[in-house]
Amino acid sequence: MSDVKKVVLAYSGGLDTSVIVKWLQETYNCEVVTFTADIGQGEEVEPARAKAKALGVKEIYIEDLREEFVRDYVYPMFRANTIYEGEYLLGTSIARPLIAKRLIEIANQTGADAISHGATGKGNDQVRFELGAYALKPGVKVIAPWREWDLNSREKLMAYCQQHDIPVDFAGQKKKSPYSMDANLLHISYEGGILEDPWAEAEEDMWRWSVSPEAAPDEPTYVELTFDQGDIVAIDGVPMKPHEVLEKLNKMGGDNGIGRLDIVENRYVGMKSRGCYETPGGTIMLKAHRAIESLTLDREEAHLKDELMPKYAEVIYNGYWWSPERRMLQAAIDETQRNVSGVVRLKLYKGNVIVAGRQSDQSLFDESIATFEDDAGAYDQKDAEGFIKLNALRLRIAAGKGRKQD
Amino acid sequence: MSDVKKVVLAYSGGLDTSVIVKWLQETYNCEVVTFTADIGQGEEVEPARAKAKALGVKEIYIEDLREEFVRDYVYPMFRANTIYEGEYLLGTSIARPLIAKRLIEIANQTGADAISHGATGKGNDQVRFELGAYALKPGVKVIAPWREWDLNSREKLMAYCQQHDIPVDFAGQKKKSPYSMDANLLHISYEGGILEDPWAEAEEDMWRWSVSPEAAPDEPTYVELTFDQGDIVAIDGVPMKPHEVLEKLNKMGGDNGIGRLDIVENRYVGMKSRGCYETPGGTIMLKAHRAIESLTLDREEAHLKDELMPKYAEVIYNGYWWSPERRMLQAAIDETQRNVSGVVRLKLYKGNVIVAGRQSDQSLFDESIATFEDDAGAYDQKDAEGFIKLNALRLRIAAGKGRKQD
Amino acid sequence: MSDVKKVVLAYSGGLDTSVIVKWLQETYNCEVVTFTADIGQGEEVEPARAKAKALGVKEIYIEDLREEFVRDYVYPMFRANTIYEGEYLLGTSIARPLIAKRLIEIANQTGADAISHGATGKGNDQVRFELGAYALKPGVKVIAPWREWDLNSREKLMAYCQQHDIPVDFAGQKKKSPYSMDANLLHISYEGGILEDPWAEAEEDMWRWSVSPEAAPDEPTYVELTFDQGDIVAIDGVPMKPHEVLEKLNKMGGDNGIGRLDIVENRYVGMKSRGCYETPGGTIMLKAHRAIESLTLDREEAHLKDELMPKYAEVIYNGYWWSPERRMLQAAIDETQRNVSGVVRLKLYKGNVIVAGRQSDQSLFDESIATFEDDAGAYDQKDAEGFIKLNALRLRIAAGKGRKQD
Amino acid sequence: MSDVKKVVLAYSGGLDTSVIVKWLQETYNCEVVTFTADIGQGEEVEPARAKAKALGVKEIYIEDLREEFVRDYVYPMFRANTIYEGEYLLGTSIARPLIAKRLIEIANQTGADAISHGATGKGNDQVRFELGAYALKPGVKVIAPWREWDLNSREKLMAYCQQHDIPVDFAGQKKKSPYSMDANLLHISYEGGILEDPWAEAEEDMWRWSVSPEAAPDEPTYVELTFDQGDIVAIDGVPMKPHEVLEKLNKMGGDNGIGRLDIVENRYVGMKSRGCYETPGGTIMLKAHRAIESLTLDREEAHLKDELMPKYAEVIYNGYWWSPERRMLQAAIDETQRNVSGVVRLKLYKGNVIVAGRQSDQSLFDESIATFEDDAGAYDQKDAEGFIKLNALRLRIAAGKGRKQD
Repeated sequence: MSDVKKVVLAYSGGLDTSVIVKWLQETYNCEVVTFTADIGQGEEVEPARAKAKALGVKEIYIEDLREEFVRDYVYPMFRANTIYEGEYLLGTSIARPLIAKRLIEIANQTGADAISHGATGKGNDQVRFELGAYALKPGVKVIAPWREWDLNSREKLMAYCQQHDIPVDFAGQKKKSPYSMDANLLHISYEGGILEDPWAEAEEDMWRWSVSPEAAPDEPTYVELTFDQGDIVAIDGVPMKPHEVLEKLNKMGGDNGIGRLDIVENRYVGMKSRGCYETPGGTIMLKAHRAIESLTLDREEAHLKDELMPKYAEVIYNGYWWSPERRMLQAAIDETQRNVSGVVRLKLYKGNVIVAGRQSDQSLFDESIATFEDDAGAYDQKDAEGFIKLNALRLRIAAGKGRKQD
Repeated sequence: MSDVKKVVLAYSGGLDTSVIVKWLQETYNCEVVTFTADIGQGEEVEPARAKAKALGVKEIYIEDLREEFVRDYVYPMFRANTIYEGEYLLGTSIARPLIAKRLIEIANQTGADAISHGATGKGNDQVRFELGAYALKPGVKVIAPWREWDLNSREKLMAYCQQHDIPVDFAGQKKKSPYSMDANLLHISYEGGILEDPWAEAEEDMWRWSVSPEAAPDEPTYVELTFDQGDIVAIDGVPMKPHEVLEKLNKMGGDNGIGRLDIVENRYVGMKSRGCYETPGGTIMLKAHRAIESLTLDREEAHLKDELMPKYAEVIYNGYWWSPERRMLQAAIDETQRNVSGVVRLKLYKGNVIVAGRQSDQSLFDESIATFEDDAGAYDQKDAEGFIKLNALRLRIAAGKGRKQD
Repeated sequence: MSDVKKVVLAYSGGLDTSVIVKWLQETYNCEVVTFTADIGQGEEVEPARAKAKALGVKEIYIEDLREEFVRDYVYPMFRANTIYEGEYLLGTSIARPLIAKRLIEIANQTGADAISHGATGKGNDQVRFELGAYALKPGVKVIAPWREWDLNSREKLMAYCQQHDIPVDFAGQKKKSPYSMDANLLHISYEGGILEDPWAEAEEDMWRWSVSPEAAPDEPTYVELTFDQGDIVAIDGVPMKPHEVLEKLNKMGGDNGIGRLDIVENRYVGMKSRGCYETPGGTIMLKAHRAIESLTLDREEAHLKDELMPKYAEVIYNGYWWSPERRMLQAAIDETQRNVSGVVRLKLYKGNVIVAGRQSDQSLFDESIATFEDDAGAYDQKDAEGFIKLNALRLRIAAGKGRKQD
Repeated sequence: MSDVKKVVLAYSGGLDTSVIVKWLQETYNCEVVTFTADIGQGEEVEPARAKAKALGVKEIYIEDLREEFVRDYVYPMFRANTIYEGEYLLGTSIARPLIAKRLIEIANQTGADAISHGATGKGNDQVRFELGAYALKPGVKVIAPWREWDLNSREKLMAYCQQHDIPVDFAGQKKKSPYSMDANLLHISYEGGILEDPWAEAEEDMWRWSVSPEAAPDEPTYVELTFDQGDIVAIDGVPMKPHEVLEKLNKMGGDNGIGRLDIVENRYVGMKSRGCYETPGGTIMLKAHRAIESLTLDREEAHLKDELMPKYAEVIYNGYWWSPERRMLQAAIDETQRNVSGVVRLKLYKGNVIVAGRQSDQSLFDESIATFEDDAGAYDQKDAEGFIKLNALRLRIAAGKGRKQD
């Protein structure tokens, strides 16, 4: 273990990763560089500086990555209407590649030969961090303390803190949430505690980002989202940067009881787990994106996108953002978004996101053809006969040969 | 046109298909057999008998197909979590194969050589009826009056009625809905009128099966659905037949403002159209089915189902129920449902269907492995290292060879 | 029919399209522009000029499109290892979009309002021509004489010629091949005649581009093909343009009995048909492309390409080259080809294309890892245990719950 | 390591697995049960009995599994026209699930708590053995000596033999092939040695099952294969069991220089490897199966099969035969094979497998429709116009809106 000289740690400033700083210094006798990022988790990142210093860290990176996060990761993902297992909007998954990338970039800048993180050996995040790290710096050494050490209970962690003079906010620890949580601009997640019983309903006071549908206003909120090439660029006509859009929609969604999710999902490491998620802005974005696509995408590219989406979601969920297959799928998806521009009007009400209208200069909806009224010859109904006859031909031949059809 | 001797008509008892009866008799100088089915559209079918008789029809088929419809068509489709273009639950599409099948069976019984229907030349339904008919009786003649005649305005139809002594309920015609509607146990649909403008919000008084979320009760309703091999077999512990389940869920959903949908969709005949749908029971069924699958399906079969679903939905939407590809996909889907049994608890509230719990004897959720607490060795976290290392190997080799990774 | 003023005809100079010139002039009382292209069919195109002139045509387009054909159509298609129904290399299909494009461009240049072609109403080519034409000029009028006229036998055609003073090479007509043939740089095809019986073996004297394996040299021929980003750019070290590559490989393949194919295929219009094809160069290109990809493509992008290929082949076969879905797929495919560079060495021998070696600066084959000998720690075999354990976890949980596994 | 009481070893009777017997006895102080199967590898299995006895083994299983192997594994796989990465017929992959199944069954019969195999930690076979074992007996202990011991050179193995009185056929060891080989009824494989250089051509004397195309007879061999529901049931009219079919076709193919393959493939453990394969019978079977399907499969099910095949191949290659996803895919595939019956006539000649004819009572080829001659109204060419018009509609609308089409 003596071969590691310097390690870059994804450092939250919390107790666990503070213990990791010390443990790395001790166990590997190496220098630790901390990296703390604001990706919209809703907590101050600056306090991490003093904590890291107190632990003897000399190189401390604290960064605001919110804009990059939404622009380069969340937005491209939403172009695909990405949903994992029919429900999950991949809020945790999509933040990991960015963290991995910065860890490696900082390792390169600081001459570090290793990276480290605080994810456990049971979860997906270790995989996402490490696949990213290996893809971007193949020779990097990865240290995953939770897979190595024996501090696998809260008591042992506390004992370690006491032993190593790591200051513990005991009051904070006591009122600590019973849930394992993760947050960024796209979502906040909850796992563990009573959620480990899939039959148990989540308690109301667990949720942090949204009011319940019951508690949401009795009046609906209308909002107009402007899309340009698949991405939201303005809300109610006001141009905004991607992360501003998401912040604003999180607020609007949360206020209206939108975006709660309670699921059992399949982890890449092979087990099922129960998780609850709040994705207020993302839930609105997905509905709106489908609506603008419904007007502007060709049918066949839309269907092909839908067929590829589960694979794309799996690739991201499993941690393969930095992979050739993700780039390949992204190329196909992005190709379709050139004309996905226009405005979607939504009604937000007590958990519901309702499409109230959509319009686009790029619309492929042709009223003169679709109309139930006289179409002045725009569409010749007689064409349908030949269309049906030839599409039926293979079925008729088969039936004519006595093939069973039911 | 003299070569048709007898034609079986899908007869609703309404004005349009009554005109068709007469038009067929006149134009083809043939006998007309009428077929009217109760598939849960919510209108009496028996009155069609007297109307048909009055038009000189001698062979009149009136049937209650609700049980068969839900059991053999709706339920198999829901096993796949079928959604067309991310939104539409295929309420109209799934009723057509059954109508086509009965048309052909009646043609065979009555010695008819043709079938006819009242679908227009612009829509999907003509395709669905006719593909089904050709697949089941390859030599059948299909007559689609809307593609043939020149009665393409309400005025001309009325004139035709007057000319041929077809009784018109002029009061009824006046208060006639401005929308083109279709209903069965799974849904009711609305097209035309102001909906032809995708920017226009649907008017509240258009909706017939559900109250608005705003008007729904302020108290949530909880319900427990019991699944057996992918199908709902009981509600709140009371065993029910498939169509009884759907009727009950339609009521519960409609009462709670659930199941409204407003979309622009891509028709098989090549145009986009705007439609509004109410699918209260179906919306509940879909959410519940995903929830029970989340507990009981293996990850890889679940993902494969999700990848195949858009194709399966397209096959049904386009009218290919009676096709080898549908049977092939159904075989794959049904194979996965053997263990999809258990109970899902749902909370219905003002348009929301919220999963409140799920349990199953077939559950693959293993709390002893998934737990954040001590797992007593059920899972060895050290295995994750090798797992990640080998999954990363191809990425590391590529990066090591200088391949660009971002 | 009087509304057509000028029509651009895909004119081969042969009897059938000469009749079409006259028939268009007479039937539509319109001006005819002829377009004749050399796409490597192996016949002189210049003689078409005099023939067209003799028929009164004033605007005559004769073009050599060989380079464009191979560079912009054949090569992109081969990047996907495209095969229709497991066998067919799409030789006819891939030429049609180019013809359609030129027909439309010439229509735009000459102010024509219609295009016309000599494809029958039973085949795929009419679809390919017309889909392309409509996609590129949505208001164009398409005239397909074989679907309109009643000259549906050789006798009637001859009578028409005599009646309209169209010179017929009666000697040529007599010794006319019993097969319907189509040729371009990628292949030559044969249909009809005795081939309409799928049990009948093709006769040796039908084949025109290749010797039989039996008649091929007893000595093998070795050849080295250099790839750059998925495309062959040199043969035996000699740089060549795409069409020169294909011409050269056609010669080498044909000389060695390579590229004959005899299949029953499914046409887009709904019927099965029997066809024989000679694709000497294409058969070599496909094998070589797979070989260079085997060394340079990442596993997952390679597998995803293979999953998408049948759809891509179908899109081209059915005539949707000029479609959003083709562009979407092409974007994905092209994204993968950035590193598909290197050299493949092949042995050609009596119908066989055998890979004798492949090398690349972009190779992902890592001998130090793959070796059966001591790998000096490049790969830690112990990683495999964790890899297998976690991949097996879902299966073990299911088996532990008593799920049937066989 | 003391917790293993009895282990079932996949025992070939060769030097390596003999060492493993001894090593297991020593290292785990446990009883060893040997299992040796004839799956057509072409070596006597009975001699393994004496060798095992000499090593102190008391429970010795020697079985002829050839019929089961071909009937229950090879044949189902060939129904899908399964090819991995465009080339490989999965000869090694498909034998592993059967071995895994028998290992577990014998473990259950003999009360063993562990299984063991002689596969290395770099290859796919360890994964296939172990995934199968875990899926069928989730609590089984797997011992993979090559991942555990330090006998990782031939010298160390020899030393171990001498030390433990394991008889070594030194003559045999000297003339030992420089290649790592694996054989069963479907194929024989070669890896290692000079093959580790992908540019090096395989040497002629490496190949064992086939003559070279050059050395094959100058006269072609014709053969007729009879299919019933996707499986070959007779050769030249003589009914045979599956393994007899494959034995016979191996002979015919090998005699005619058929079935050699030289590829670079992607292993599941993340590296590329070079392999050479001889699959004479399988190569013939694949060509014949495609030919009979071309006549008897519906177009859409055929295309869907082709789209699913790469995934199915990957599932088998990676070792997931005993998985829900394989069963799901198999259900889809088998559903399509009900009418895949008939006769294919093939010409075998110097490495070529040429389809010379195909016929079937279930044929969907309709000569009366496909014909270039007068079809007496079986197909109305005018139907094609409507077919094309509606298929083009979405493209025309897009072009009409100014969408770029190229």
